[in-house]
Amino acid sequence: MIVGIVGGGQLARMLALAGCPLGLKFIFLDPDPEACAAPLGQHLRGRYDDWALLARLAREVDVATYEFENVPEESIGVLSELVAVHPNANVLAVARDRLREKALFRELAVPTPRFAAVHTRADLERAVAKIGLPAVLKKRTLGYDGKGQAVLRSAGDFDAGWARLGGARSILERFVPFDREVSLIAVRGGNGEILFYPLAENTHRDGVLRFSVSRPGDPMQALAEDYARRLLDTLDYVGVFALELFQVGETLLANEMAPRVHNSGHWTIEGAETSQFENHLRAVLGWPLGPTTARGYAAMVNFIGVEPDAAQVLAIPGVHLHAYGKAARQGRKLGHATLRAENARALHAGLDRLLALASPVKEAHDHRDSTESRVA
Amino acid sequence: MIVGIVGGGQLARMLALAGCPLGLKFIFLDPDPEACAAPLGQHLRGRYDDWALLARLAREVDVATYEFENVPEESIGVLSELVAVHPNANVLAVARDRLREKALFRELAVPTPRFAAVHTRADLERAVAKIGLPAVLKKRTLGYDGKGQAVLRSAGDFDAGWARLGGARSILERFVPFDREVSLIAVRGGNGEILFYPLAENTHRDGVLRFSVSRPGDPMQALAEDYARRLLDTLDYVGVFALELFQVGETLLANEMAPRVHNSGHWTIEGAETSQFENHLRAVLGWPLGPTTARGYAAMVNFIGVEPDAAQVLAIPGVHLHAYGKAARQGRKLGHATLRAENARALHAGLDRLLALASPVKEAHDHRDSTESRVA
Repeated sequence: MIVGIVGGGQLARMLALAGCPLGLKFIFLDPDPEACAAPLGQHLRGRYDDWALLARLAREVDVATYEFENVPEESIGVLSELVAVHPNANVLAVARDRLREKALFRELAVPTPRFAAVHTRADLERAVAKIGLPAVLKKRTLGYDGKGQAVLRSAGDFDAGWARLGGARSILERFVPFDREVSLIAVRGGNGEILFYPLAENTHRDGVLRFSVSRPGDPMQALAEDYARRLLDTLDYVGVFALELFQVGETLLANEMAPRVHNSGHWTIEGAETSQFENHLRAVLGWPLGPTTARGYAAMVNFIGVEPDAAQVLAIPGVHLHAYGKAARQGRKLGHATLRAENARALHAGLDRLLALASPVKEAHDHRDSTESRVA
Repeated sequence: MIVGIVGGGQLARMLALAGCPLGLKFIFLDPDPEACAAPLGQHLRGRYDDWALLARLAREVDVATYEFENVPEESIGVLSELVAVHPNANVLAVARDRLREKALFRELAVPTPRFAAVHTRADLERAVAKIGLPAVLKKRTLGYDGKGQAVLRSAGDFDAGWARLGGARSILERFVPFDREVSLIAVRGGNGEILFYPLAENTHRDGVLRFSVSRPGDPMQALAEDYARRLLDTLDYVGVFALELFQVGETLLANEMAPRVHNSGHWTIEGAETSQFENHLRAVLGWPLGPTTARGYAAMVNFIGVEPDAAQVLAIPGVHLHAYGKAARQGRKLGHATLRAENARALHAGLDRLLALASPVKEAHDHRDSTESRVA
């Protein structure tokens, strides 16, 4: 079987590494000549809206998927007419648009921070009047890792914020002083079966995920699953799905969803019986899903901008290294490491060491009781 | 870092799959145009004794290793003069020659079945007089998976046995009616550190390994480790090492050693904290070794000649599929599956199902109390 992936970055790379033992072959569509998944399959180099290339991809694969949501929805629409694509084109259309996404949350009674559409400069005052300050102005589409966002704390910030987003169609969201951020990774099979991984607790900095800690048995698990299930069934979703949530007291507010394998689920490669990558492939192929149960305790630390020395990383017992084979560049995700341990104490001892290696600049990492607030 | 591997079969393929996340690249030297590791790196296609190709391999890699012992020892000797090779050339010279191997066992007081050299037809009677019958006549070199062997039960078998081996320099070994066969996978780092995986209990049929069950906490573990340690230290070994042993009562008799990752250690990919493949790479690179502790219970079943349907295999909870991407051919190892479970009962329930899928011909699989005798 040949799987086509729109996008050839580290998520596609890890999908291919999971799929190779399953006997799968891969074709990646990616404009980047150095796409880091390319050595693991065939690389169709070109734009995501190159219809001829999309048609070629469709001809050569048994099923197609995409590794991120910032693909033109028309591309996935075209592809879907030629070959089976999972998750479906409608999922992508919703997930790549923060306003449609939030509207779906509301429609399904999944709580979210207050929000309002902002399509013109004049909308901004009306939106602020409706939802209050502080708030975060975000582009409806194509934002990621904190890009395309502006925090508004007072009326004095409005002009600069609007200018920063370049007048793009936007959404204003009430800033939430959350207790913690968690994410739920789920997988829905071709037959509608849904499995959930344990919640991960996430710590961001500058809008980018720094580390995640898996939380098997978390008291918020059932509520998060309930919300995710509504979304998955409504969207007739097939594949792996991520739902990011803010916890405020005993409530969970949905921040965003991702129609793909997710950075906060990388710990599942070693920390769960079946990784999110393998389960995504099993789902899109219509194969049975694998168990999502945790194996002990796990955490994941991103390597951003700098890759620590491999031998130093591997000297920490229970650490598993994942280098993406990408050239170093400031702010770029170059790799991650998973730490697995049999108990929470061993996990946190190792995590201290791993975080120190991952961050060239020394700083406090309060991962035992993460209460950091962020602009999400 | 670039790792050169002499051989491009499934062992090289699984080494590459383990090394890719470590940021390693691979070059394989293999005459087979369809070498199944090739898609995961660069393929130098040519004979193992092509000196020009060996020199090119040496130039292009940081360190070299080999995936099997049936490489000419001169090739590894030549390679060793140009680049670091682990395990060292002397290890290969010993491991590829059953007589030198057995002599080393004896020298280190590691018990073995009785044996004698048979270099001429006349030697055969003398050897039988010395060690008794039944016995197994084996070629000293280039035998594997039961090939190049003949069982001698009476004097009437001598001529046919000698003819079957084509008059090659051979070794006669007393046939051992063992209680079970176990193997110990060890890894020795560049600094001399040695770690051991839990023993695996192996079941062969027609000289080929069919399935292995990991046995954490086995009462014979310490004795097996003692024997392996003598060999590893004496050989100044670096890398993963396998020692196959017959258990007879409370004694262990060394059958053979393999200077490489081993089929009976494939379960470590999911069943141990660090796989044998990753640890082999960490050792040959001089990096710290990873923990070899078991994660629950694991078993491995080979797919020989026929690959069962992937979806059927994956429907068994806790099964992990490894297809090698090889064309089907009678008697060929095409893949394996690992089964992982939290307790022995769940393991054996899954193993029954997996064995039924792996063997198109129905047969009894007594894996709970393996007492099958074999010509080893």
